[in-house]
Amino acid sequence: MSAPAGGDLDRLSLNQETLKQWSLPDLVDGCAAAGVTRVGLWRAPVQEYGVERAARLMRDSGLTVTSLCRGGFFTASEPKARAAALDDNRAAVDEAAALGTGTLVLVSGGLPEGDRDIAAARQRVADAIAELAPYAAGRGVRLAIEPLHPMYASDRCVVSTLDQALDIAELFPAGQVGVVVDTYHLWWDDRAPKAIARAGAGGRIACFQVADWVTPLPEGVLLGRGQLGDGCVDLRGFRELVDGAGYAGDIEVEIFSPALWARNGREVLAEVVDRYRRHVL
Amino acid sequence: MSAPAGGDLDRLSLNQETLKQWSLPDLVDGCAAAGVTRVGLWRAPVQEYGVERAARLMRDSGLTVTSLCRGGFFTASEPKARAAALDDNRAAVDEAAALGTGTLVLVSGGLPEGDRDIAAARQRVADAIAELAPYAAGRGVRLAIEPLHPMYASDRCVVSTLDQALDIAELFPAGQVGVVVDTYHLWWDDRAPKAIARAGAGGRIACFQVADWVTPLPEGVLLGRGQLGDGCVDLRGFRELVDGAGYAGDIEVEIFSPALWARNGREVLAEVVDRYRRHVL
Repeated sequence: MSAPAGGDLDRLSLNQETLKQWSLPDLVDGCAAAGVTRVGLWRAPVQEYGVERAARLMRDSGLTVTSLCRGGFFTASEPKARAAALDDNRAAVDEAAALGTGTLVLVSGGLPEGDRDIAAARQRVADAIAELAPYAAGRGVRLAIEPLHPMYASDRCVVSTLDQALDIAELFPAGQVGVVVDTYHLWWDDRAPKAIARAGAGGRIACFQVADWVTPLPEGVLLGRGQLGDGCVDLRGFRELVDGAGYAGDIEVEIFSPALWARNGREVLAEVVDRYRRHVL
Repeated sequence: MSAPAGGDLDRLSLNQETLKQWSLPDLVDGCAAAGVTRVGLWRAPVQEYGVERAARLMRDSGLTVTSLCRGGFFTASEPKARAAALDDNRAAVDEAAALGTGTLVLVSGGLPEGDRDIAAARQRVADAIAELAPYAAGRGVRLAIEPLHPMYASDRCVVSTLDQALDIAELFPAGQVGVVVDTYHLWWDDRAPKAIARAGAGGRIACFQVADWVTPLPEGVLLGRGQLGDGCVDLRGFRELVDGAGYAGDIEVEIFSPALWARNGREVLAEVVDRYRRHVL
């Protein structure tokens, strides 16, 4: 039943949050059975399992870790909170290096309580990355700034468009700071195609993630992503845009969906693989 | 207790959905008591009361109707649905004219079921406005294209930024088609200041609406707006931007909030007036 490793799945990476019901060993076994050779990991489940132990599991299984989610959340203006965020980000860099991935995804953080100056918060993101980028580069880790959908601008990510992410990334060498192109966050933006071309031309696309957009959005709007093909995003169109911009890297499926988490993991992964073939390739 | 009509409230308009608990006669009485002389109306409560009867009530009370919400929802691709939407929009124009307002707010509509081509849907909005604008102009009504926050792009409004709204509006004479600047929808966008200047320079600002952004967003994300000052929007900054762009018109308070609807209407309006003075003026 399962496809061979490589072949038409050679770019597919499974972000582990898509199969949140799985432990790391489940993930290894499930991916092997489905012919999936790449995974994106998250800090919390990796820390819970043990970073070194997780790194060994990945190496022993032959799985490639395409990214670690996530650093960031450095929009605090208060000096102590700011220093703590930078410390935590250096730890995230170390974890990425230990796991053997060269990509640490950064979600910038939102507006501090009572703050109404989003431009200043965006500037603090750039300032924090200026401190973090050399540290990451020294450990072989590239920072990947992820613009999140504008509905997260106040409480999660003041970087809302790909152009904003690029405006920050381009302050640094392309090898040190790139961007994430995620269809869930960018699908609505008529300026995204031009921004993707800009990102590709500068060698800035560090990560390409896919999920579909479905409504109604749930309370808090965090866990309402759609299985590939269930929503209104032209996923293939986006894949062609990043390919056309010169990107030839991984295509990471990252769907936060309690409906998928409630199901049998192997069935969900088989469905992801099928939808990936039909709607992304 | 109540402020005199005019004075520092001379630009304040109360959108009736902010006080959804009020009937139209309640609205008339409540505004008179609070010194508010302008209101924005919605089609459904006006139709329920009777359009002519509502128009007479407005005239007799001396209230100025600053806008009617809303026409639009013309993204259907199926010819019959498209014709029905245009018919309904002509009726909305007639209602606006009867109520004595020169501004009909348009919310474009989302993507039809199964449709993934948002660019084509946006083109259909422009096509529909081309049919509607001369009809509206003949009745003294200007169409006001409202960009809605990108979180509504699939199910409510494919026009997500002020620049997109202007791209469509500028296909027509400024006296026929303008745009709505609503802080709730635009606050996150770093390109909004430039777009507001563009809108002002072209005489396109037909309506300026204020509401604050608060989280967490509720399921469906429709009824989660914040009272002025309760959220993270720089409301005064936006008012200064539209003023700086040459706009001297009404400032309409439009807050969809079950928390406000559950309270005593006169208390809510007194709070709105107080917040307006503190956070907008």
